Amino acid sequence: MAARALAVVCVSGGMDSAVTAALAAREHRLAFLHANYGQRTEARELECFHALADHFGTESRLVVDFSDLRQIGGSSLTDLSLPVREGDPVEGVIPTSYVPFRNAHLLAAATSWAEVQGARYLYVGAVWEDSSGYPDCRPEFYRAFEEAIRLGTRPETDLRIVTPVIRMSKAEIVSKGAELLVPFEKTWSCYQSVAQACGRCESCRLRMAGFRQAGLADPIPYQTAW
Amino acid sequence: MAARALAVVCVSGGMDSAVTAALAAREHRLAFLHANYGQRTEARELECFHALADHFGTESRLVVDFSDLRQIGGSSLTDLSLPVREGDPVEGVIPTSYVPFRNAHLLAAATSWAEVQGARYLYVGAVWEDSSGYPDCRPEFYRAFEEAIRLGTRPETDLRIVTPVIRMSKAEIVSKGAELLVPFEKTWSCYQSVAQACGRCESCRLRMAGFRQAGLADPIPYQTAW
Repeated sequence: MAARALAVVCVSGGMDSAVTAALAAREHRLAFLHANYGQRTEARELECFHALADHFGTESRLVVDFSDLRQIGGSSLTDLSLPVREGDPVEGVIPTSYVPFRNAHLLAAATSWAEVQGARYLYVGAVWEDSSGYPDCRPEFYRAFEEAIRLGTRPETDLRIVTPVIRMSKAEIVSKGAELLVPFEKTWSCYQSVAQACGRCESCRLRMAGFRQAGLADPIPYQTAW
Repeated sequence: MAARALAVVCVSGGMDSAVTAALAAREHRLAFLHANYGQRTEARELECFHALADHFGTESRLVVDFSDLRQIGGSSLTDLSLPVREGDPVEGVIPTSYVPFRNAHLLAAATSWAEVQGARYLYVGAVWEDSSGYPDCRPEFYRAFEEAIRLGTRPETDLRIVTPVIRMSKAEIVSKGAELLVPFEKTWSCYQSVAQACGRCESCRLRMAGFRQAGLADPIPYQTAW
């Protein structure tokens, strides 16, 4: 049997990246990457990242800090003077939680680390179909970035971007995760609180709807019963 | 007369980005971006960045730190245990000074900052024709990244990457800079020293050959007379 290739997996600590990690784990050796960039719930996400890295037995882990995104701001996730929007996402409206071009920073860091380690795959848990509508979660963005990687790295670097949940609904992601025994209690999605999820921000709404439609109970604590 | 558009200019402090800035200054309002990432000559480059920003009267300036590149390593510029190669670049060989996918980090930061400020242009002083052969200096890389920006940012963000010196020889860059009165004494290219340029690393060799071929004197101090 051929040796398994190494995959760098971007793990935010949310449920989408946890399911993405479980899908990567079926085929590849794992290297987990996490980014802090001044988001409100950074500490809780980082805790989930390490818990997931332990769960999946990743070979290496790297936590990076995008201090430039902290400085640049422009998002309610990183600028505490902008309120986090509550309620369901509105079709065609980019929410205030969009962090300008954040996923490009993530892909750049993942690519540099992949190139140094000789990884062959780069897994990202972006969701487009049933998402908040961030432009850097679009499937076409990942195809274009993959081309930039091909052209902008060493000729021997051969790196494919894999976005296995990008076209799944949140309910499909929950079902797939349950099937793969993803420890959802070790994930965090809420944009504004770290002890109990608020249940009101866009990210909580999407997660709650996903569990409800999948007919499964969400194991994390919420401030309000729904 | 229409208001001038804003251009984010990536200014390392080297001569290529100084000439690029001079070209941007002819047409646009300026916002200068500089990145520290653990390179050996960081302090001197940053000094040059500020001197150039003062010279060109830039409206805003941002200094970011790519701490992930410091952590990831893989380059003789950031890993002090790897020697900086001396002598002229060798055709077809990517030098040890290549920082894996560094320019993607730069473009990601520049794009985020441009998006928040509503800038229309992103100037980068990459050189391909007469360069060290870093893959992330290839013209095609910038076209692919521009497409990733178009797809991965807000629909109203309209950002063009401009690489005005990418196909120039070093001698042409020196001549163009002299014509635009670029203060070359406020630029730094050496990879290994900060007081007097070593005159032996690849970057010094390329710079020295450029001045020699352009028939001009380089105003910065060198350790050895050539």
